[in-house]
Amino acid sequence: MGMIGGGIESFIGDVHRKAATLDGMMELVCGAFSSTAERSKESGKLLLIPEDRCYNNFEEMILAEKELPENERMDFVAIVTPNHLHFAPAKMALKNGFHVVCDKPMTLTLDEAKALEQVVESTGLLFALTHNYPGSPMVKQAKAMVKNGDIGKIRKVQVQYLQGWLATSVEKTGQKQAAWRVDPTKSGIGGALGDIGTHAENIVEYITGLQIKELAADLGKFGEDRVLDDDGNILLRLENGAKGTMSFSQIAVGEENNLAIRIYGEKGSLEWNQENPNQLITRWLDKPKMIYTPNGNNLYPEAMAASRIPAGHPEGYLEAFANVYKNFAKHLYAKLSKKDIKAPDYPTVSDGVRGMKFIYASVESDKKNAAWVELKEYKYENN
Amino acid sequence: MGMIGGGIESFIGDVHRKAATLDGMMELVCGAFSSTAERSKESGKLLLIPEDRCYNNFEEMILAEKELPENERMDFVAIVTPNHLHFAPAKMALKNGFHVVCDKPMTLTLDEAKALEQVVESTGLLFALTHNYPGSPMVKQAKAMVKNGDIGKIRKVQVQYLQGWLATSVEKTGQKQAAWRVDPTKSGIGGALGDIGTHAENIVEYITGLQIKELAADLGKFGEDRVLDDDGNILLRLENGAKGTMSFSQIAVGEENNLAIRIYGEKGSLEWNQENPNQLITRWLDKPKMIYTPNGNNLYPEAMAASRIPAGHPEGYLEAFANVYKNFAKHLYAKLSKKDIKAPDYPTVSDGVRGMKFIYASVESDKKNAAWVELKEYKYENN
Amino acid sequence: MGMIGGGIESFIGDVHRKAATLDGMMELVCGAFSSTAERSKESGKLLLIPEDRCYNNFEEMILAEKELPENERMDFVAIVTPNHLHFAPAKMALKNGFHVVCDKPMTLTLDEAKALEQVVESTGLLFALTHNYPGSPMVKQAKAMVKNGDIGKIRKVQVQYLQGWLATSVEKTGQKQAAWRVDPTKSGIGGALGDIGTHAENIVEYITGLQIKELAADLGKFGEDRVLDDDGNILLRLENGAKGTMSFSQIAVGEENNLAIRIYGEKGSLEWNQENPNQLITRWLDKPKMIYTPNGNNLYPEAMAASRIPAGHPEGYLEAFANVYKNFAKHLYAKLSKKDIKAPDYPTVSDGVRGMKFIYASVESDKKNAAWVELKEYKYENN
Amino acid sequence: MGMIGGGIESFIGDVHRKAATLDGMMELVCGAFSSTAERSKESGKLLLIPEDRCYNNFEEMILAEKELPENERMDFVAIVTPNHLHFAPAKMALKNGFHVVCDKPMTLTLDEAKALEQVVESTGLLFALTHNYPGSPMVKQAKAMVKNGDIGKIRKVQVQYLQGWLATSVEKTGQKQAAWRVDPTKSGIGGALGDIGTHAENIVEYITGLQIKELAADLGKFGEDRVLDDDGNILLRLENGAKGTMSFSQIAVGEENNLAIRIYGEKGSLEWNQENPNQLITRWLDKPKMIYTPNGNNLYPEAMAASRIPAGHPEGYLEAFANVYKNFAKHLYAKLSKKDIKAPDYPTVSDGVRGMKFIYASVESDKKNAAWVELKEYKYENN
Repeated sequence: MGMIGGGIESFIGDVHRKAATLDGMMELVCGAFSSTAERSKESGKLLLIPEDRCYNNFEEMILAEKELPENERMDFVAIVTPNHLHFAPAKMALKNGFHVVCDKPMTLTLDEAKALEQVVESTGLLFALTHNYPGSPMVKQAKAMVKNGDIGKIRKVQVQYLQGWLATSVEKTGQKQAAWRVDPTKSGIGGALGDIGTHAENIVEYITGLQIKELAADLGKFGEDRVLDDDGNILLRLENGAKGTMSFSQIAVGEENNLAIRIYGEKGSLEWNQENPNQLITRWLDKPKMIYTPNGNNLYPEAMAASRIPAGHPEGYLEAFANVYKNFAKHLYAKLSKKDIKAPDYPTVSDGVRGMKFIYASVESDKKNAAWVELKEYKYENN
Repeated sequence: MGMIGGGIESFIGDVHRKAATLDGMMELVCGAFSSTAERSKESGKLLLIPEDRCYNNFEEMILAEKELPENERMDFVAIVTPNHLHFAPAKMALKNGFHVVCDKPMTLTLDEAKALEQVVESTGLLFALTHNYPGSPMVKQAKAMVKNGDIGKIRKVQVQYLQGWLATSVEKTGQKQAAWRVDPTKSGIGGALGDIGTHAENIVEYITGLQIKELAADLGKFGEDRVLDDDGNILLRLENGAKGTMSFSQIAVGEENNLAIRIYGEKGSLEWNQENPNQLITRWLDKPKMIYTPNGNNLYPEAMAASRIPAGHPEGYLEAFANVYKNFAKHLYAKLSKKDIKAPDYPTVSDGVRGMKFIYASVESDKKNAAWVELKEYKYENN
Repeated sequence: MGMIGGGIESFIGDVHRKAATLDGMMELVCGAFSSTAERSKESGKLLLIPEDRCYNNFEEMILAEKELPENERMDFVAIVTPNHLHFAPAKMALKNGFHVVCDKPMTLTLDEAKALEQVVESTGLLFALTHNYPGSPMVKQAKAMVKNGDIGKIRKVQVQYLQGWLATSVEKTGQKQAAWRVDPTKSGIGGALGDIGTHAENIVEYITGLQIKELAADLGKFGEDRVLDDDGNILLRLENGAKGTMSFSQIAVGEENNLAIRIYGEKGSLEWNQENPNQLITRWLDKPKMIYTPNGNNLYPEAMAASRIPAGHPEGYLEAFANVYKNFAKHLYAKLSKKDIKAPDYPTVSDGVRGMKFIYASVESDKKNAAWVELKEYKYENN
Repeated sequence: MGMIGGGIESFIGDVHRKAATLDGMMELVCGAFSSTAERSKESGKLLLIPEDRCYNNFEEMILAEKELPENERMDFVAIVTPNHLHFAPAKMALKNGFHVVCDKPMTLTLDEAKALEQVVESTGLLFALTHNYPGSPMVKQAKAMVKNGDIGKIRKVQVQYLQGWLATSVEKTGQKQAAWRVDPTKSGIGGALGDIGTHAENIVEYITGLQIKELAADLGKFGEDRVLDDDGNILLRLENGAKGTMSFSQIAVGEENNLAIRIYGEKGSLEWNQENPNQLITRWLDKPKMIYTPNGNNLYPEAMAASRIPAGHPEGYLEAFANVYKNFAKHLYAKLSKKDIKAPDYPTVSDGVRGMKFIYASVESDKKNAAWVELKEYKYENN
C-alpha cells in the first residue's frame, strides 16, 4: 500500500492508515504524503517509511514503484488528497498497473468520473471508493433485512447528515480542512453536497438496493461569502416509487457527525444513527420495537462478519472504515492469487460515478429552483 | 362548557374533556355528543350530564342553552367532530354568543375557514384551535429561547410527524377513526396533510415566530385505493431566509406519534421530540449539549408556567393539551370579568386559517409536481 | 371524596385532586385542607368547595359529614398530610364509616401501622395507599410478564430512586416540603428511606410478586445537621433466592425523580425508568432487545387497561397516579353496589404495614452496621 | 512486542494486537501463542510472524529473544493468557530484562500479585495492566473534572458491570472462554468478581482518585454446578466517607457489556456508560444537564489527548484499549531514550495488587455473610 496525500496534519490520511492496517492485512510501504517534497519526507519519517520510499510526488512514486520487483512494490495506491487531486493520480496509477483506493467524492468533475470509470474498466484493476458507513455492522444488517424482504416493499426514506463545524467562517481562520472544502477549485461544484451529501446518497442506495430516480434540491449558502452550498434539503423519489427527504448541513450548530437514516417498508421499518452506530432500531406492524446490536442475537451473516469483538463492546468509525479496507483486501488477495470473488462488498468506481451524478443533478435542480432532475439516467452537457 | 361530538367511542372527545377539566377551571355541563339523538343521550348519561342537557343535535343545544339564564348556560362550545362538522356549529355558536374551542384542522375548506375568521372578528368572541403541542412545557421553553435570541437568527428547520397506523387498509376493517380520515367529504382535501401535517406546520411557526414563506410538496398515496395523501415530504422556505424540510406520514410502519422538530440558528440549536416530551435538547457553538427539563434548572417563565409538578415527574399529552385549555380559560375568565389579557397563548382562528392555507398550498404544489407555492401570502381561486 | 390536608401550597394535595378526578369517577365535595381553619377555608374557596363543607379540622369534617344524608356525604377521605398526621384521621374516618385513601408512608410508626391494619380489618372498609408507580402502564406490563413466566425465575433485582433536591440545606431556607421531611417528629425514623425508599421497596415487590426476605442497609446523612438519612444503599435477598441492590438518595445532585428498576430472570429481563415511563425495555436469551410501549403491540390486558390514549401519546405521573384512584374507585363503586370485585389492583393497608416494616428493618440494619435483618417476618420490640 | 497466549481462537489476544498497533507505535515481532507448539506456529504464521520467532512456549521465547541483538529483540512482552498463566511468564520476563503488559486480573492469587509487585520494583522495569476502560476519552474527562473540583467532594458512587453470557451453562457446551472462567484453578477465587468486578473496582478508584475503604459483598452462584460466583452485589465505603453500591453479573440475561458508573459530588454529578462511551452525562445544582463528547466542546486536555478523530465519529472499545497501549508506549519510548515521564497514565502493578485485594476482600466478606471487610489496608493470612 502506497499513499498519496495524508501528511501528518491530515485527518483522513491517518484514518485511512489506521483503517487499512487494523486487521493486519495491509501495510503502508511508501507514500507521497504532501504537496511539497520536504513535508512528504517529514511525514514519511514519522510513519517509519524508509526514506527512499518517501516520494516527492505521486508521479515519481508510481514510476519508481513500478520499477521495483513485483513482490516488493506496493500493490495498490490509497488516494487521500482533496477532491481536485483524485483523478490524475488515480488514472496514472491504474495505467501503470496499480489498484486504487480513493477517497470520496471520487473526482472534481463528472467528466473526470466517467473517464476514470473507463480506465478502471479497460485495465481490469480494482478500484475502491471509501464510503465508510456501509462498513458498519448494523448497516450491513439493515441491508440484509431489506434484501431478505423482512420489511417488505420500501415506501419512504428519510436521510440526514448534519454537522455544525462550518457554522461560522472557520475557513477564514486558517483552518485547512475548511479552506479547501469551501473552494470550488478544490472541492468541485458541491460543498456540503459533495462532502457529506454523497455519503447520504450512498447509504440510501446501499441499504435499499434501489436507485434514486429523481430529486428536487434546495441548496443553501449560509456562511458569509460562501460560493458553495453549506446546507441542502432534497426531495427524493426512488426507482420503485418510494419517496423521501434528504437533509444535510455543515452549519447545523452543535451537530457533530449526525448521519441518520430511516427506511419504511410495507411490513417494517429500520433506523440507524451513525453517532450511536451499535444499534439498529426496527419497528413492526405487529411486534414491539426490536433493537439489534453487533454480534448480538438474530443477526444475518453479513452483519456478523462485520464485527470483530463481542456484543456490547462498541466498535466505531475506524472499525467501519476498516471493514471497507478489509473487503477490498480480500478481493485484492483473491486477485493476486488469480482467484475470483463473488460480489465484493465495497463501494467501487460505479458508486463514484453515481455520487458525481448526484452532485451534478442536485446543483442543476437547485439552479432551476428545485425542479425535479432525473438522477437514475442523468443526462448532462457540461453543466 | 358544552360539547359537540365526542361520544363515548371518540378518542378525541375524551381527551378534550380530560384536558378541559384537569385544572379545575372548567366543567362539562351539556353536549350533543353523537350524530344520533339516542347515542348522544347514552354518552351524556355515562358522562353524568343531566338528561335535559343532552341534546339531539348542535342546533338544538345552541338554541336551548341560549335560553338559559346567563349564569347557568354553557360559556363556550367545544367542537370535537370530524372536520366536515366544524364550520356549521362553530359559526352558529358564535352567532348566538358562545365562545368556541374547535379541533384542528379548523374547517373542511379554506373558504369556510375565511368565513369563520370573519365571524370571529365580527362577534369579538374567543376562538381557540386545539393544536395541543404548543402546550408542552419544553415547546414553551424552545419558543422563549428563540424569542430571547439565545440561538440567533434561524437558518434551518427540520420537522417530522410520523405515524404508522394507516400502513395497512384499516379503513376497510370498520375502524371509524381511519374511515373518516381517508374520506375527502369528511376530511377535506388533505389526508395526513390535514390530520398531522398541520400540527407540524403549526409547531414550526409557533416556536420560530416565523411564517413559512413558500413550500414545495410531494405527497404520497401508498395505501390501497386511497384518494387522499397518507404521506408527504415538503421543502420549506421561511420568511427570514431559513430553509427546511417537513416529512409526515401515516404509513410509517411502527411509528406511533413521532412528532419531532429541530431548529438551527446561528448560535445554537433546539431539538424536541413529542414522544419524549420532557426534555429539550440544545446544542451550542462552544458549550456542551445541554438538556432542559420541565421545572428543571434555568428555564424561562413561560416554560415554568406550563408545568404542574416537580422536575422528573413526567407530564404528557393530556397535560400539554390541558395547557391550551388553561390558557383559553384564563382568557375566558378575563373576558367574563370584562378584563383584558395581554397576548393570550393559545392557537386562534388565524392559526386555523393559516393551517387551511397550508393544506391548500401543499395540495396545489403537489399537483404541480412539487413546484414552489407561496404560503405566506397564499392566493387561491377555489382550487 | 373529602380531603384532609392538601391546601393550596401543597404539591401532593393537588396531585391527588387531579388524579382522583381525571377519569370523571370522583368529585371533591369537602375538605379540611390546612392546619388552620382560616387557610383551610381559603383553599376550599379556590377549589370551589361550598363554604359549609370547608371544615376547620378533620375531626369536625368526619363528624359533620357523617350527619349528612348518605347520598350527600362524602364516600371516602383522602389523607394527604405529612406522615405524622396520617394515623389519627385515618383511624377516625374508618371508625366513622368512611373509606380511606392515604398517602405513603402509611404512618409515623410501625405500631400505628399495625393498629391501623386492625382497624381496616375490623371495619371491613376500603383502604388505599397511594404508591403511584404501580399505576404506570409499563409497570403493569412488567408485572404481567413476570406473572406469566415470560422471564422465568427471577435471579437479580436492581432498584434505585435518586433525587437531588436535598443536596444542599434547603430545609434551612424555609422550603416547607424539605422542612418536615428532615424532621423525625413529622417524618418518622426514616428520611429519604421513608419518602422514596418505600416506593422502591413497593415496586420491587409489586412487579416480582416476591417479598424481600432480608436486607442489609447502609444509610447516609450527608446534609449538614441532618438527623435522618438522606441517602441509602441496601443489599437485598428475596424470598425465592434472588439477590439485589437498592440505592436511594435525595442528595444525588441533578437527579430529578430517577426511579428505575431492572429485573433479571432465567430467560429474560425487564427494565423500567420512571422518568421515561412509556417504554419497557426487555432483554432475552436469544432475541434482540424488545421495547414495549403503552397501547403498543403485544401487551398484556393489564397494561392495555392502564392506558387512556393511543400509543405514542405520552402519559405521565398524573395518569399513573390516576390509575391507582381509578382502581380504587372501581372497588368502591362495587362496594357501594354491594358487589364484589376480584383482586382489586391498588396498594392496600398491608402494603402500608410492609412499607413501615421496611423502614424499621432498614434503620435497625443500619444501626448494626449493615447487618442482615429479616424483613419478611420482621420482629421488633419498639426499636 | 512479543505475545504470550493470544492464539487465533483467542478473543483478547486479537484485541491486544489491534490495540497495540493501532497508533503505529508498536509492532508484534514474536510470540508463544498457544499451549502447544504446533498451534503456536500456526497462529504465528497467520499473523505473519517469521517462523523462527514463533516459539514453543514462553520460556523458550524469553531466553531466545534475550540472545538477540538489543535493537532486534522484542522490547516487552504482552501476556494475554488465562489468569493462572500470568505470574510465571511475567516474572520470568521481568527477571530477564523485558518490560511487561499483562491482562487483568493480574495473577491467580494475591500472593503472586505481591511477589510480582516486588519483582517489578526490584527490576525497575515497566509493567502495564490492561484495564482498558480508563482509556476511554470520556473517562479521562470524568477523572479530570473530579480532580479539578468541578463536582465537589464526592458523596455517592454507583457502579455496575452487567453481562448475560453465562446465564445458561455455556461452559458445558465446549465454549472455551466460559470454561476457564468458571474453573478456580484457572480463574482464581473470583469468578465474575475477578473477570469484571475488578474492572468496576478499578474504574471507581481511577475516576474518583479515592480508594475503597471497606466493602460488604454478597456473591451469587446462579449457574448450575458453578463453584465460583457469577453475580455479586457489594456495598462500598470510600476513604473520604462517600458510600455506594457495586453490582456485577454474568447471568443478567440479555445484557451485553453494560459497565456504567455514576458519581455524585456536592456540586455536580457524572455518569458514563461503556456501551455508549462517547458521552459523559453531567448534572448540576443550578444548570441543565450537560453532555460532553470526545473532541467536543469544553473538554479538559486529558480528554482531548485521548481522541483520535473529530467529534461525532465514534471511537469504541479498541480505541480505548489502544489508549492504554499508547500511554505505555510513550513511557516505554521515554525509558528507552533514558528520559523520564511525569505521571504515566496507565494501570500498573499496584493497580494489579489492588485488584487482587479487592477479590480477596470480597470473597472474605461474602464468606462472613457480607460483613464489612477493610480493603484499603487489606490484611489476610492466606485466606
